[in-house]
Amino acid sequence: MLDKNKKILIIGLGLIGASYAKRLKEKGYYVGAITRSQDTIDYAIDNDFINEGTIEVKKEFVKEFDFVIFGLYPNVLIKWLNEYHTFFKEGTIITDVTGVKSKIVYKIEEILKDDKVEFLGSHPMAGREVYGIKNANPKIFNDANFIITPTKKSSESAINLVHDLAVTLEFKNISRLSPEEHDEMIAFLSQLTHVIAVSLMCSKSSKHLVDYTGDSFRDLTRIAKINEDMWTELFLLNKEELINQMNLFLKSFNEMKTALENEDIDKMKEMMRTSTRRRSYFDIKR
Amino acid sequence: MLDKNKKILIIGLGLIGASYAKRLKEKGYYVGAITRSQDTIDYAIDNDFINEGTIEVKKEFVKEFDFVIFGLYPNVLIKWLNEYHTFFKEGTIITDVTGVKSKIVYKIEEILKDDKVEFLGSHPMAGREVYGIKNANPKIFNDANFIITPTKKSSESAINLVHDLAVTLEFKNISRLSPEEHDEMIAFLSQLTHVIAVSLMCSKSSKHLVDYTGDSFRDLTRIAKINEDMWTELFLLNKEELINQMNLFLKSFNEMKTALENEDIDKMKEMMRTSTRRRSYFDIKR
Repeated sequence: MLDKNKKILIIGLGLIGASYAKRLKEKGYYVGAITRSQDTIDYAIDNDFINEGTIEVKKEFVKEFDFVIFGLYPNVLIKWLNEYHTFFKEGTIITDVTGVKSKIVYKIEEILKDDKVEFLGSHPMAGREVYGIKNANPKIFNDANFIITPTKKSSESAINLVHDLAVTLEFKNISRLSPEEHDEMIAFLSQLTHVIAVSLMCSKSSKHLVDYTGDSFRDLTRIAKINEDMWTELFLLNKEELINQMNLFLKSFNEMKTALENEDIDKMKEMMRTSTRRRSYFDIKR
Repeated sequence: MLDKNKKILIIGLGLIGASYAKRLKEKGYYVGAITRSQDTIDYAIDNDFINEGTIEVKKEFVKEFDFVIFGLYPNVLIKWLNEYHTFFKEGTIITDVTGVKSKIVYKIEEILKDDKVEFLGSHPMAGREVYGIKNANPKIFNDANFIITPTKKSSESAINLVHDLAVTLEFKNISRLSPEEHDEMIAFLSQLTHVIAVSLMCSKSSKHLVDYTGDSFRDLTRIAKINEDMWTELFLLNKEELINQMNLFLKSFNEMKTALENEDIDKMKEMMRTSTRRRSYFDIKR
């Protein structure tokens, strides 16, 4: 568990930032916030998500805090740090929540290289198809994975602190990957699945199909309701790896298509057995 | 609701056939069954799913019944009817549960053309990734769609009877499509989604990825655990239409890939907005 004496600043009270705030505040931590809109600050105070908050970025406010968590989109995060990176108190540990890592982690280390603070990337895999503070709900963490992405420069104390954060937030499973491993993994497990769902919805006007839909289509396309600003940014920041994973998927999809065209029953069944076996690992773990 | 005086025969006590039997018996209908294994008959009687059952196909048993429901795989159903179609009592109405229609419905009408019985196809869209009588559970119908697939030869009385069956089984929504419309729709909504899930699982060994998985991957691949005998048969019986739908999906997937390669942000966002708008219909309906 996190040390109760650490004052925590959350920058950006979107779905994830606000859900972090809510759980930390509930557990008795001191939580401050900076976000864009005064309405969001008011909502966060009225609902007891934070102790204090502001829409202005001031050094005297920022340097009150020991641990800073960025809940911003990746490009906004970079811009913020470029502008205000000298505001942090010496010794501050900083983490984030963004879904891409190599394209931002090294850039942030570069921005902070002369400051006596440390950035360590992390990724709470708890996104939802809803957004904003009004949908904040820390229960989304309880069954979710949390990934810490240290670099060669990361200290054990920062890794321990971010690990303690994940424990305090009640993530189910906490693991470590390099930024590059993270990005390959996320391209396959998350970005590719979103590309598939969006492509499927775009391939056919399906309004009239609602009456005939089974659960498989609903489950597969749940993520087809997508925030186009955030996901376009995430796709572009992981472009090479996502294209690699899209090509792997295409190869496999076209194998099934060829097998069906040739009525190659053995090949079709072999793919289905592979699929069934691999998918079963995910049930055991759950 | 179905007439309580009609005696119902279910042939094939798999997941769907046994779930039909359970709900009908619970509601006080007289239910008989023919299935392959005596263990299944014993289980069905012990658990009060049926009034009587047998593993032998005998004319004196079959002609006791007014309404016959086939819970068999499509090719087994055709074989069964070829062998025993003269066993039915005059005036018997027959339906099925199979997930493909044009390739079997007309064939069955042909087999029965000199018999004084009527076949009307129907498709309960309530499949699960579990199989067999021990997983039988009529609750799977309560949130599900039911499709009746009449041809020019179908009588209103048969359509009404199968409609009443669906009402009695408590399907949420009952609709009618021609066999051809059904097969196009099912190729897109169900078969294509299974091809996608299987292809995704086959594209990468993902055992080590379990610790990093979010809900999107789990939801999208739920159906990747697949009965290879049943689905190979269903794919082959709807081959042309499934290949059409696979090509539509590929076109859309490749559009997203090209947009990403060219960093065409407008195109990517446009596809995401289309996807979001189309997916929202499915929420409203639910």
